[in-house]
Amino acid sequence: MLIEKLNWRYATKKMDPSKTVSEDKVERIVEAARLAPTSSGLQPFEVIVVTDPDVRAKIREIAWNQAQVTEGSHLLVFAAWDNYTEERINHMFDLVNEERGIKNEGWEAYRQMLLTSYPQRDQQVNFEHAARQAYIGFGMAVAQAAFEGVDSTPMEGFDPAKLDEILGLREKGLRSVTILPLGYRQPDGDWLVNLKKVRRPLAEFTSRV
Amino acid sequence: MLIEKLNWRYATKKMDPSKTVSEDKVERIVEAARLAPTSSGLQPFEVIVVTDPDVRAKIREIAWNQAQVTEGSHLLVFAAWDNYTEERINHMFDLVNEERGIKNEGWEAYRQMLLTSYPQRDQQVNFEHAARQAYIGFGMAVAQAAFEGVDSTPMEGFDPAKLDEILGLREKGLRSVTILPLGYRQPDGDWLVNLKKVRRPLAEFTSRV
Repeated sequence: MLIEKLNWRYATKKMDPSKTVSEDKVERIVEAARLAPTSSGLQPFEVIVVTDPDVRAKIREIAWNQAQVTEGSHLLVFAAWDNYTEERINHMFDLVNEERGIKNEGWEAYRQMLLTSYPQRDQQVNFEHAARQAYIGFGMAVAQAAFEGVDSTPMEGFDPAKLDEILGLREKGLRSVTILPLGYRQPDGDWLVNLKKVRRPLAEFTSRV
Repeated sequence: MLIEKLNWRYATKKMDPSKTVSEDKVERIVEAARLAPTSSGLQPFEVIVVTDPDVRAKIREIAWNQAQVTEGSHLLVFAAWDNYTEERINHMFDLVNEERGIKNEGWEAYRQMLLTSYPQRDQQVNFEHAARQAYIGFGMAVAQAAFEGVDSTPMEGFDPAKLDEILGLREKGLRSVTILPLGYRQPDGDWLVNLKKVRRPLAEFTSRV
């Protein structure tokens, strides 16, 4: 049944500005991203939920004027950590210990391994790694939106530096990587809605060993 | 209900080698990845389904000896395009035209825009972009596996260059980015199965604008 929903979804080009996605659905879509598995469990990304019309109007300007940004009811911004720092790594490992109420030798050795490698790496390498993790959460949010019957439009077509400025992300150590408007399709005026979804055939997409 | 499944799933540490994931479930997990949205619809990645025990034994050696690689019944390897080439872009645009039975001026202009930008970019930039797309599919496959009640272990802990060699990926213009063993948990002997799943609290993970 999830597969049916994944077939139902498409990169919605025209959203009905009179329809609003309910808060409980938005929460579950964000929750799917929060539950996404990430490397070493560090969750090196955040999701900013933008509803403010003025902010979304500004974002639309730096997103090739794509209408879904303002015609959907919510805009999710996926922003990855700009770097892996000692503080961030320790924070997550401490949170795990606190939540589980135990200390584990292997886990602490693993923490040390990360502390002696990640923060010393090139910042851009770390950001690229964090960005990939954000894309796992992005994929899970897209799946959850489809499952909820909510339309969404995965978008990389925007100026990340300008979006970071609009939302003040750099000051928080974040860099935007993808955005996801949420809303409901308006079939009249959506050139894509009735076109066949095209994916490479299985034989091209997968192989067996 | 998908959220329940996402809470149920965890990075399974011990899989029961006597249990095999059914082919129809594996197919739907791969299908979720195939249906993933990707930038410009290019689907710049493939999924290799490895069941051969000898090949999996070799992969386990270059994956920190993680047991799930051989104790699960299937291993999915996500491999991204090493580059965006004219040929690959044209192939996907032609496929779309063929499947939809129409030619669209805007779509053709978009093809030209990609042809005059992507192939000229640095190969590593293109690979990183393709890799991110693979992670969208990876996230959707993880979600689908959970939905199917299939255990999986998202893994970046392996030597990509050696995995590429084992599977002959470079010759196909592919580079491995993540792997996903599929199987069923063996609670006895899995140190993680009964520990609390920890994620950053909502207030840390998300904000509203």
